[in-house]
Amino acid sequence: MRLALDAMGGDHAPGPIVAGAVQAVQADAELRVVLVGDQAQLGPLLGPDAPRDRLEIFHCTQVVGMEESPVVGMRRKPDNTISRCWQLLAQRKVDGIVSAGNTGAMVAGGLMSKRFLAKVRRPGIAAIIPTFQSFCVMLDVGANVNPEPEHLFQYGVMGSIFARYLLQKEKPTIGLMNIGSEEAKGHSLAKETHALFNASPLRKQFIGNVEGRDLHSGDADVVVTDAFVGNVVLKTCEGVFDFVMKVAAKVVLGALDTERGKAEQALQGLAARYHYSEFGGAPLLGIEGVCIICHGSSDDRAIKNALAVAARYAAVHLNDLIVQELEATQPALAPEG
Amino acid sequence: MRLALDAMGGDHAPGPIVAGAVQAVQADAELRVVLVGDQAQLGPLLGPDAPRDRLEIFHCTQVVGMEESPVVGMRRKPDNTISRCWQLLAQRKVDGIVSAGNTGAMVAGGLMSKRFLAKVRRPGIAAIIPTFQSFCVMLDVGANVNPEPEHLFQYGVMGSIFARYLLQKEKPTIGLMNIGSEEAKGHSLAKETHALFNASPLRKQFIGNVEGRDLHSGDADVVVTDAFVGNVVLKTCEGVFDFVMKVAAKVVLGALDTERGKAEQALQGLAARYHYSEFGGAPLLGIEGVCIICHGSSDDRAIKNALAVAARYAAVHLNDLIVQELEATQPALAPEG
Repeated sequence: MRLALDAMGGDHAPGPIVAGAVQAVQADAELRVVLVGDQAQLGPLLGPDAPRDRLEIFHCTQVVGMEESPVVGMRRKPDNTISRCWQLLAQRKVDGIVSAGNTGAMVAGGLMSKRFLAKVRRPGIAAIIPTFQSFCVMLDVGANVNPEPEHLFQYGVMGSIFARYLLQKEKPTIGLMNIGSEEAKGHSLAKETHALFNASPLRKQFIGNVEGRDLHSGDADVVVTDAFVGNVVLKTCEGVFDFVMKVAAKVVLGALDTERGKAEQALQGLAARYHYSEFGGAPLLGIEGVCIICHGSSDDRAIKNALAVAARYAAVHLNDLIVQELEATQPALAPEG
Repeated sequence: MRLALDAMGGDHAPGPIVAGAVQAVQADAELRVVLVGDQAQLGPLLGPDAPRDRLEIFHCTQVVGMEESPVVGMRRKPDNTISRCWQLLAQRKVDGIVSAGNTGAMVAGGLMSKRFLAKVRRPGIAAIIPTFQSFCVMLDVGANVNPEPEHLFQYGVMGSIFARYLLQKEKPTIGLMNIGSEEAKGHSLAKETHALFNASPLRKQFIGNVEGRDLHSGDADVVVTDAFVGNVVLKTCEGVFDFVMKVAAKVVLGALDTERGKAEQALQGLAARYHYSEFGGAPLLGIEGVCIICHGSSDDRAIKNALAVAARYAAVHLNDLIVQELEATQPALAPEG
């Protein structure tokens, strides 16, 4: 397995990014990582213990900034790390790419490559969300701000394959994010998507509308929505988690005397368990090859886990399974308009 | 002050609804409450201690169910509690109305009444959200699923008046819910709303885009968004809060021995402090009179607090202040299309 890693992307790049790559290849003897970025900066970061035979540097000189306009940045900087990652993928020199850099540029690279899987209309970003039982996957969280109902239907198909093979859900349930449980609720996108699922071979997996408060219940293994709602919800989850953990720590630790240390340790363990770095980034589903988009503030652990997810994704040939499932469910879709 | 209360609306009606009304009039000697609902059920719920001189029953026979289609329900049941509340308001027999019943029916009642405040294009529901510092107000969370940029601008105006006079924010900041901090982010509704604020007299209060993770930071005192996003975000906050409190309680209490009771008490206090019942419901801003929409599972405390919020809203003449502010900022708006 060979993956390209944007070594210059992310708030803390390149130090923790390179460290994550070293940990990933140390943990997986089959893994090779191509570090894409400035050789002069990256070389010294590879310590004496790094397995250099499975870590190479692909030198390039430019980086699209985290807050930079993706399209402008990529045009002005043709030698940027993200475009180079996509080129390595297009040339089949790597099986997948991973970046904690500018999310918009990663998505734009995928859209510009036009290397969508057969039958896929628009790729979508899938985020992994913790539930009381285990995890669910919500998509799209950032690629497709103005989707059509068919796109959301395909997100259900792709998300259910992801949930089945990477989250070990035997028969994943699919829910539609909406503002009420009744079928007639919501805007036209929601109503039309609801009808598409009910008219499709996936109707037995489709559990109808889910609301924001159901996300963590675990009832839906896959939650489909547009990128605007998905992105806002994902970041709201992050914000509320942070808020509650901080106020809970304050009141609990303030109330204790002798066992304060134990409580603090328990809360720290909980924060680590649900930290985004644990899930290693969000896959862009629907493109040829593997593309994992990481949180901007990824640390070494997040990068290590993202590389591991990318390797597993490629190893189980998830894209072949997605194409098969799309073919099996496609008859329900109207011709592209 | 005289308020009508939908005594039959909500998951637990009528018991806790009537109890909340009794507590509210006991706490405020100026308050009179008209209980709207079935006299035979409501009469016996008024105990011997209830101040009967300030609690009357307006008898009606029907209720729109919590899951019932609002429009169908209101048409089929002309003598329903929600329509009767709106009629009492239209006839100026009460200053405000409060219901924990079918939210869609409450909104539909307001839209059908057509008694919008001068210059208001569409009413919006404002939810009060806790922040690290105090509270912010997010709207719309349920009235207007397909808004125009002008509607969102007016939500900013109305929300800032609410924040100023009911949340004691001297000069409230206004943020636009979006998927990134840069001006060019998001769908056309977001971009056009952004431009409207920047071209208006409110530009000094407008802090631009806010993301889901900023909601609890307190940077924005008012967050404007469409009803779909606002409703999903509000319920996501509720779900994540519940999720984190449960998993935190589990790990913390599991780690403690002698001080488990203290930690449990601290967590219960925290859950009560941020429980929706503390904020007493969400006002529908932009209509003549006062309308407070409560959570379906409201208990007596929620109803008591909602009645208190409605009384304060009416007492400070918030609607007059909203109309003045809309007149002052209106030049920025294009004529209704």
